[in-house]
Amino acid sequence: MPVTSTTICFRNIRLLAQIESVAPVVVAKKENCALVVRDGKVVKTVKDSGIRAGQYDSVVDLKGRAVIPGFVDCHTHLVYGGDRKEEAEKRATGESYLEILKQGGGIHNTVEATRKSGEEELYQTARARMKRMIQLGTTAFEIKSGYGLDLETEKKMLRVGQSLRDKLKVPVNLTYLGAHAVPKGWEREEYLDWVIENLPAFRGLADAVDIFCEQDVFSVKDLRRLFLRAKLLGFHLRAHVEELSHQGGCYEAAKLGALSCDHLEHALPKDIRAMQLSGSVAVLLPGVTFFLGGEKIAPAHSFIDAGVPLALATDCNPGSSPTYNMQTILYLAAFLYRLSPDQALAAGTLGAARALERHKEFGGLLPGQRADFNVLKTDDYRDLFYYFGDNFVDKTYLAGEMIR
Amino acid sequence: MPVTSTTICFRNIRLLAQIESVAPVVVAKKENCALVVRDGKVVKTVKDSGIRAGQYDSVVDLKGRAVIPGFVDCHTHLVYGGDRKEEAEKRATGESYLEILKQGGGIHNTVEATRKSGEEELYQTARARMKRMIQLGTTAFEIKSGYGLDLETEKKMLRVGQSLRDKLKVPVNLTYLGAHAVPKGWEREEYLDWVIENLPAFRGLADAVDIFCEQDVFSVKDLRRLFLRAKLLGFHLRAHVEELSHQGGCYEAAKLGALSCDHLEHALPKDIRAMQLSGSVAVLLPGVTFFLGGEKIAPAHSFIDAGVPLALATDCNPGSSPTYNMQTILYLAAFLYRLSPDQALAAGTLGAARALERHKEFGGLLPGQRADFNVLKTDDYRDLFYYFGDNFVDKTYLAGEMIR
Repeated sequence: MPVTSTTICFRNIRLLAQIESVAPVVVAKKENCALVVRDGKVVKTVKDSGIRAGQYDSVVDLKGRAVIPGFVDCHTHLVYGGDRKEEAEKRATGESYLEILKQGGGIHNTVEATRKSGEEELYQTARARMKRMIQLGTTAFEIKSGYGLDLETEKKMLRVGQSLRDKLKVPVNLTYLGAHAVPKGWEREEYLDWVIENLPAFRGLADAVDIFCEQDVFSVKDLRRLFLRAKLLGFHLRAHVEELSHQGGCYEAAKLGALSCDHLEHALPKDIRAMQLSGSVAVLLPGVTFFLGGEKIAPAHSFIDAGVPLALATDCNPGSSPTYNMQTILYLAAFLYRLSPDQALAAGTLGAARALERHKEFGGLLPGQRADFNVLKTDDYRDLFYYFGDNFVDKTYLAGEMIR
Repeated sequence: MPVTSTTICFRNIRLLAQIESVAPVVVAKKENCALVVRDGKVVKTVKDSGIRAGQYDSVVDLKGRAVIPGFVDCHTHLVYGGDRKEEAEKRATGESYLEILKQGGGIHNTVEATRKSGEEELYQTARARMKRMIQLGTTAFEIKSGYGLDLETEKKMLRVGQSLRDKLKVPVNLTYLGAHAVPKGWEREEYLDWVIENLPAFRGLADAVDIFCEQDVFSVKDLRRLFLRAKLLGFHLRAHVEELSHQGGCYEAAKLGALSCDHLEHALPKDIRAMQLSGSVAVLLPGVTFFLGGEKIAPAHSFIDAGVPLALATDCNPGSSPTYNMQTILYLAAFLYRLSPDQALAAGTLGAARALERHKEFGGLLPGQRADFNVLKTDDYRDLFYYFGDNFVDKTYLAGEMIR
């Protein structure tokens, strides 16, 4: 039986899409426009005035509203047990993230809670988070493991990620982050050996391997050892680098061809140069800067100036950025990094898709891409930045179908 | 005919109220609790388990949700014509607020747009803003004039404020801010003379007089001249002071008994000492710090330590803080000033009511106060700060009646 093809025309929109996220950033702005979608994918945009009756299987009138690509959240840790609200209050009185970690708090609390959680419980809490994120306009995700630090729990987290992808029917990339912290009772080197030895067990479960390279956590040498092995096994590489201090992990990760270098608050010009040469994407996480109150702001404009693709993400996690809202991330980025609305929008959509190496599939509403988009409550998408703090997503479409 | 008295019991709540907003800040936390409301006012709180059938005219089960006082937005300029999105983009590329003002942009654009707007048009746009603010949990307002800078428009703005109060049935305090800027075509001194001469025309329209004391705007001497006259006429005094630079306006305003000193990014210890002695409330506006990207953060903890009551507000205005959302202001305050959730909540409710000298009437859900409150989507009000960027207000009650 032949598959029946359906063409929908979303008419009467202000389109902010067909984005180029590498400098110079381009956001095509088309008024009185219509978006033609066939079988969940963008075919083209046409002038609204040129639409004829009967030309499409259905026509949806969006009444002059602004339409932007769905947000791509390319760095999250959204599968976790427990929460860390108490710790957030401690930090309000001046204790630092690394101090709390040294005292055996911080991530270790989450590891304990995640190990204790059953797979179904983990799935249900993560599903609730992801559903809220979708309601707020996010249409594609990356999810990392890293709160198990043992074979069983790391696999459990990634299976939860797979279930979320299969059941919520949104694109999800999974990353194995065994090297997130040294678990209690282990020596650093001994634990890293274990992570490297067991990498093959995560093939098929995750498409990328990640590491937290930081003072008192994992060293640049550790990153190099892990990445050489992961690369041989066919994993993509991602790295948490230069977040709380400069260690040199970014330079090393870029040299080894990492798909993305993430955080980067302390990145130096030579690191940016290495990323420029390797084509790595700079994933900035302004929610962390905001929530942890660090003094360093990632040099966003240096990446743009160097032609390094810029991406934004929530870093959704219980310790350093529990937010679910990419809209919040976009306006935080605009203010903290002095990005224009166009730059922030490009970084939170096509730039983030690039960090997942899925920018051919989605992120810019380009012809051939999935029709994942948000219809805003306004005709001017800059309202998201101007009237900051409000929710401007009215309806979200995944592959041309409205999900709210 | 005798008035029939109605008693409602809101049961099964986690109450975060009965607040003391002067240091040490106290937010009473009561679980399994019920709030008894008679004729729109709080009578008392009782244990949930002690409620008997038939004891109240009606019982509303709030299912364990957190209940907090309605937010009090004690500093807004929400009646205005036009918007200033273009200017916001200019600032993203590095132009400062005062530079734009000197070029004849900034507030002058808003003055022109506000003068041109008809009273009905001004009312409709302000009403839409205020309704959105109420939806986001704000239940009492202060509104300033100051975008007319002539008799006709200043009065028009204040009449719009009166209409909002009368028709939306929320508490609104009105402030005459003729000394907001020197209008085009006037000399500073000549204009201030005009403002002072015409003060009597604003009796009955506004209960307070305000001034923007800043380099190249109005001087400390101007503030003194205006305030001495305003005080004689029976107006409360408020002042925009020490925002972009230190001028000494705070010290002078406090000495003259100002109800509130607002902004205060550049306040010095002697200013704080003067406020401590005068009992002035420190109104902090973190949305401005965030939106304008200034380097100075108001010394919130110094006010708390000195026993100066702290208040938070949106400063809702088109040039330096267009946000409508007190929830955003609370979490911005928590992060920028390192306030605990309790301190931020107290400052955005009873502290702000104190800045309006209406803390006997509302702000803390204390017995005898109006039953203006928010039912949150969660049982833990700290979620507002932890999962920052989401909207946690589920239902808002004004004088015991649900408005959404």
